[in-house]
Amino acid sequence: MLRPTHNGDRYELTSPTAMPKAAGFLWNQKMMIQITCRGYATAQFMQPEPAKYSHAPNIEAKTFMQPEQNYYTHHPGRFVYIKDEETNELFSAPYEPVRTKVDRFVFSVGKSDIEWTVEHLGIRVEMTLSVPTHDVAELWTVKVTNLSGRTRKISVYPYFPIGNLSWMNQSAEYREDLKAVVASSVTPYQAAEDYWKNKFLKDKTYFACETPPNSWETMQQAFEGEGGLHAPTALQEPILKGGDARYETPVAAVQYRIALEPDEKQEYRFLFGPAFDDAEIAAMTKRYLSKEGFAKSASSYASYIQQGRGCLQIKTPDKDLDNFVNNWLPRQVFYHGDVNRLSTDPQTRNYLQDNMGMSFVKPEVARKAFLIALRQQEANGSMPDGILLAEGAELKYINKIPHTDHCVWLPVTLDAYLNETADYELLDESITISNGDKYTVFECFSRAVDWLFSQRDERGLNYIAQGDWCDPMNMVGYKGIGVSAWLTVATGYASNLWANVCELKGKSELAAHYRSAAKEINAAANKEFWDGDWYARGITDDGVIFGTKDDREGRIWLNPQTFSILGGAASSEQVAKFLPQIEKQLTTPYGVTMFAPAYSGMREDIGRVTQKYPGSAENGSVYNHAAIFFIYSLYSIGKGELAYKYLRQMLPGPSEEDYVQRGQLPVYIPNYYRGAYHEYPRTAGRSSQLFNTGTIPWVYRCFIEGLCGLRGDPKGLTINPQLPEAWSRIHVTREFRGATFNVNIQRSGTKTVKVVCDGKDLPEPRITGIKAGTTYEVSVYVPGGLTNGHRH
Amino acid sequence: MLRPTHNGDRYELTSPTAMPKAAGFLWNQKMMIQITCRGYATAQFMQPEPAKYSHAPNIEAKTFMQPEQNYYTHHPGRFVYIKDEETNELFSAPYEPVRTKVDRFVFSVGKSDIEWTVEHLGIRVEMTLSVPTHDVAELWTVKVTNLSGRTRKISVYPYFPIGNLSWMNQSAEYREDLKAVVASSVTPYQAAEDYWKNKFLKDKTYFACETPPNSWETMQQAFEGEGGLHAPTALQEPILKGGDARYETPVAAVQYRIALEPDEKQEYRFLFGPAFDDAEIAAMTKRYLSKEGFAKSASSYASYIQQGRGCLQIKTPDKDLDNFVNNWLPRQVFYHGDVNRLSTDPQTRNYLQDNMGMSFVKPEVARKAFLIALRQQEANGSMPDGILLAEGAELKYINKIPHTDHCVWLPVTLDAYLNETADYELLDESITISNGDKYTVFECFSRAVDWLFSQRDERGLNYIAQGDWCDPMNMVGYKGIGVSAWLTVATGYASNLWANVCELKGKSELAAHYRSAAKEINAAANKEFWDGDWYARGITDDGVIFGTKDDREGRIWLNPQTFSILGGAASSEQVAKFLPQIEKQLTTPYGVTMFAPAYSGMREDIGRVTQKYPGSAENGSVYNHAAIFFIYSLYSIGKGELAYKYLRQMLPGPSEEDYVQRGQLPVYIPNYYRGAYHEYPRTAGRSSQLFNTGTIPWVYRCFIEGLCGLRGDPKGLTINPQLPEAWSRIHVTREFRGATFNVNIQRSGTKTVKVVCDGKDLPEPRITGIKAGTTYEVSVYVPGGLTNGHRH
Repeated sequence: MLRPTHNGDRYELTSPTAMPKAAGFLWNQKMMIQITCRGYATAQFMQPEPAKYSHAPNIEAKTFMQPEQNYYTHHPGRFVYIKDEETNELFSAPYEPVRTKVDRFVFSVGKSDIEWTVEHLGIRVEMTLSVPTHDVAELWTVKVTNLSGRTRKISVYPYFPIGNLSWMNQSAEYREDLKAVVASSVTPYQAAEDYWKNKFLKDKTYFACETPPNSWETMQQAFEGEGGLHAPTALQEPILKGGDARYETPVAAVQYRIALEPDEKQEYRFLFGPAFDDAEIAAMTKRYLSKEGFAKSASSYASYIQQGRGCLQIKTPDKDLDNFVNNWLPRQVFYHGDVNRLSTDPQTRNYLQDNMGMSFVKPEVARKAFLIALRQQEANGSMPDGILLAEGAELKYINKIPHTDHCVWLPVTLDAYLNETADYELLDESITISNGDKYTVFECFSRAVDWLFSQRDERGLNYIAQGDWCDPMNMVGYKGIGVSAWLTVATGYASNLWANVCELKGKSELAAHYRSAAKEINAAANKEFWDGDWYARGITDDGVIFGTKDDREGRIWLNPQTFSILGGAASSEQVAKFLPQIEKQLTTPYGVTMFAPAYSGMREDIGRVTQKYPGSAENGSVYNHAAIFFIYSLYSIGKGELAYKYLRQMLPGPSEEDYVQRGQLPVYIPNYYRGAYHEYPRTAGRSSQLFNTGTIPWVYRCFIEGLCGLRGDPKGLTINPQLPEAWSRIHVTREFRGATFNVNIQRSGTKTVKVVCDGKDLPEPRITGIKAGTTYEVSVYVPGGLTNGHRH
Repeated sequence: MLRPTHNGDRYELTSPTAMPKAAGFLWNQKMMIQITCRGYATAQFMQPEPAKYSHAPNIEAKTFMQPEQNYYTHHPGRFVYIKDEETNELFSAPYEPVRTKVDRFVFSVGKSDIEWTVEHLGIRVEMTLSVPTHDVAELWTVKVTNLSGRTRKISVYPYFPIGNLSWMNQSAEYREDLKAVVASSVTPYQAAEDYWKNKFLKDKTYFACETPPNSWETMQQAFEGEGGLHAPTALQEPILKGGDARYETPVAAVQYRIALEPDEKQEYRFLFGPAFDDAEIAAMTKRYLSKEGFAKSASSYASYIQQGRGCLQIKTPDKDLDNFVNNWLPRQVFYHGDVNRLSTDPQTRNYLQDNMGMSFVKPEVARKAFLIALRQQEANGSMPDGILLAEGAELKYINKIPHTDHCVWLPVTLDAYLNETADYELLDESITISNGDKYTVFECFSRAVDWLFSQRDERGLNYIAQGDWCDPMNMVGYKGIGVSAWLTVATGYASNLWANVCELKGKSELAAHYRSAAKEINAAANKEFWDGDWYARGITDDGVIFGTKDDREGRIWLNPQTFSILGGAASSEQVAKFLPQIEKQLTTPYGVTMFAPAYSGMREDIGRVTQKYPGSAENGSVYNHAAIFFIYSLYSIGKGELAYKYLRQMLPGPSEEDYVQRGQLPVYIPNYYRGAYHEYPRTAGRSSQLFNTGTIPWVYRCFIEGLCGLRGDPKGLTINPQLPEAWSRIHVTREFRGATFNVNIQRSGTKTVKVVCDGKDLPEPRITGIKAGTTYEVSVYVPGGLTNGHRH
């Protein structure tokens, strides 16, 4: 079977070749590791900027996390060679570097560990990776079992490449006192002042063995020799030579020569990670490197991950979906909220949305994030491009480019937080912003929305500068004249959302002000951007409107349509006009693309998106963050059937082909699936393999508030499920404000939603007076016949 | 045979495994390629900053050129697979990626081309690489010959990896119209202003075929498949599938399916390089890609290289030495002077010395370089850390760190130029410096020397700031207090040299001033730095003297001793004291180390050298630039025997072990041989594989002015050979000021040097009244018995 399957709450893959990039990932607040079914790994840790302890064989660029790595033979990974000492036959687990077709292969991704089982030559190799809750290290268990029914002599060689640590200084040796391969280096620098910055970096990489090995090799070239990684020269000798590395590429390779009786099993444990000095290696080894240490860590880490269990359990006719929503989706929400993508300067819009997800998981984290972000608000009300989270952190990469949308995300994410918590007291908190001025949180929000108003031209349209959301265009408005249709209608949305909050805080005049501003903005958008069947995307510095039916490429863009729904710019007639156009021009089997057709070349007046490869992250791809907002907007106007169709496309469909084409395990939603579906069908649909994306809290919100229709309000829980037609019933468990709701949702002959709570018919579909600690049994009857489609 | 041998003026190696990094290099003013015997290549071209057209499989860092690359399976290279279509046997030329033990292997490095001959399975593959004189491209010829005596069916697959071109945009396809694999990309950028900088970059890489192939593959992963590069999956099929690459790693792989009669030969030509657009690919193909085009280019390029034939031909008992001095040494001098290491901001000291070498090759280039450098002199007389050679160039890497020695190199390099040319008119040229002020060249030199005087403390010692020559220490004087012993005695040397020039320009008062300044500086150096048996290296900001017998590491440094000889600080008694210490503490079989013992760890008061790996470029290595100055100083005081002993160590000795240990073809002198000879004997002596080094003009000068003793003076040629004792005679042809001197040097019973020129005994060993265009027949008789050693 080529497609992965779920086994309990794990995902399993039984072929290393069908989806070669399929990977699992583990993290804690200090580190992250993504590892493929074939054994290639990308790991980083924070000190405080992202760093690596296992490197490429050359000098890699420091760059932001890149989607869709191209793996190659010497890419960092974690491998175990097995040699039959009697026949000299060789294979490696999990698959690389030898790439033997083995008798059995299972790659099994759990929420708090990743396992492989590989059987070949009558030997079973089981590898398990876990990480600690609070430290930086990989905890590896390798079990070797003799399945052959006869006594066997084999060698077991864990091979953990360390790669090019530094051009300034690198070496490695096996340290008997530490039972570890220790590679040492000095992070390169040139200016004297950088010495003090680097002085306390963890410049050592160690591979510590619970059981002392029989032999070892610490120099990559000596290990590999002329044989190559598929048949290393060192493995043709009875024992490894115990060499050191002196300015040469280090490797951790050790050998266990063992005899196994039939059914006998050997179990090894290893620690792999960075360290500052020998003392740290010794301390880490003492803390973790034992059966008990591993068990304790595994239990602690499982508890950590369990914090991300979320507030929703569903039981629907779609078991793949249930597994994802119940296990993997809240885990991904928690990942984003707990570690902020392991960045010290997350983009402001990402920071706000990643933490918005915590409204459903750990609301106190979301609350704190609003305060952290607003303390970095500028004197003029604008928000910086990134939120600095560590001392000495700096804005890097795209955060150096001014974007104009960050303030939009404050009211948008606050809305979700308040729905879930009704914590209106947050708005009364007093904070000190970047220039030392004091404001209440409420005032900060007003200032942010006011700043958005201030950044408009005489027509009332919002300037785009070097970019807005989704980063695609840097030259529309770099002269300070060009405007964004999306940002204009998004400002309308933000203004309306903020008006709601003003109203609830009893500030009716302010509410009226923001409502009327929204109306004015929406009117301007309709005047300047409505193209007859949809909204255009913007107008350049030179007055060229784009994203219209006159354009051959980039003809229709999703985001302006979406936010015209959310912010109220679009009338129902307008919505009725553009939805079929979206269906016709933007949909693919892998989701709704951000725009189409993809640009094939440069348009100097709009800039960078056209230089991206067609089908890349931004150029005509299924950019899930944009797609989920569209879906969210559909739920907001009751178009649940259409919404669900697009929502389900975020996960691979039931067919094997769909899984293989996307090439990713459904243990997370990636930031995009390649587009250019019509131009490049061979590659369209492929996952970016990147699990960092603002998409995630919105997917969760769509399931909670949209599909299940269990949305918080200031006083209770409003109930309005939007089941797909094909489903007759689902069961939902919802945690909300400390209470538990067991909800059966089923179709019935009712014309409106009817709710029975603890046996009582409710007068309206809304539960109020919720008591924390209580479990409510709820039956929900939704309209809709039982005549067509698949029912359970 | 493991050691390389010279065959005419080529160097040949018959094993791909004994010296795996052994390489040749070709260049022109726009590009450079270094390629190893096994086929791995590092190429760069200027647009105007260094760029690549063949990349690693990941995102490589942009960095200065790094010595001792670690090669790995997917490192960029140029390969040809051969498959026997009847047996499916496979091998690759030159050696990677299949690594088959072949029947015959020859790697042959010529001055203007690089060739391989590989024979296996009855097939001979000959590969030849050449480059054009004025364009950026690689010209490849691949010849395949059937040696088996029977008809053969084979496939020939050139495989040229292109690697990761760009995360923003990359693709590749075979273009039938261009008969080329064309990979396209966009150089990544984020800020809008960078778009215009990048707009005209050559972002395409093409592999053009004179003969259209039968099939092709342009996507790396499709080519390799599950087989790996040693057995690519695509080669197991009858024909390549003709795939494209869409955001995937591009490759140029093509297939020729051919049948060869016994002794039949097929010849293919290919162009590989960067291009801006299709039109450029078409134009390059038209210009070069034919038998005639290749022949014309080869002839033009040979003429270009011939410009670097230099001014010296020697015939000594040491044929390896003759080959190097007559062919490779002036070629390396020419390389440095003609292209300035393909940098747009060469370090000022490198720029001056690289161009000083041109005094012996193309003196007009050296002259121009003085003018270019001095135009960038600062208002205060100091020189910038790098000389900018292109519009928009910036100081990068180490050039951002202030170094205090650049002015020293002006008088030092001028001395060589004037010896060779007697062009004292240069000093009268008028130039405009960086701030717009006008000076004569003479004044600029005085200002530079005066600036050196000004940068001294109250004891008269020169501040070191963040570094001086050889870059090793950045924290001795970063607070502005620490001083350098080397820079102090080097300032004395510069001052004395400049006094000589002043004298010759008739400015006796100035001459006296600079002589007396030198005397004062030397006295200060002797007072503060003389440690009893040698000079210390410096005094830190905190007053700690280092490089003394009290130091356990970094006890004795070469450079202060060398320049105390050159600048006159050291008395003959002092020299007699430190020479044996140098012999005892600093010599190794691979040359004289820069200091010893190597630092094993950090000393915060001196800084970076101690963070380098012991035996790395600077920490206790044989840093050839320092070694050659010591040798030059020995010739300057008549210690030719000792000088030659150390000089000969710059090339591998006659033993095979020495060649293999160094691991480099003797077609250039590298910037260093690893040191830490006592601590790490396994790696000591290894070549850095880096042919960029200021060493080279000084090696040439040592041969010309030292060993052969044929030194120019204002009016003629002074003759004072210093033959090694073991040699009884040598023959020298010396080009000098347009005349040719055929010189026989031989030992005799004379007490002083006697010269016979065109049959006439000269009153002193000096030829004056030289007429350009004339050939002089000269016999030189030098003192010395004929009693011991090897004689011819």
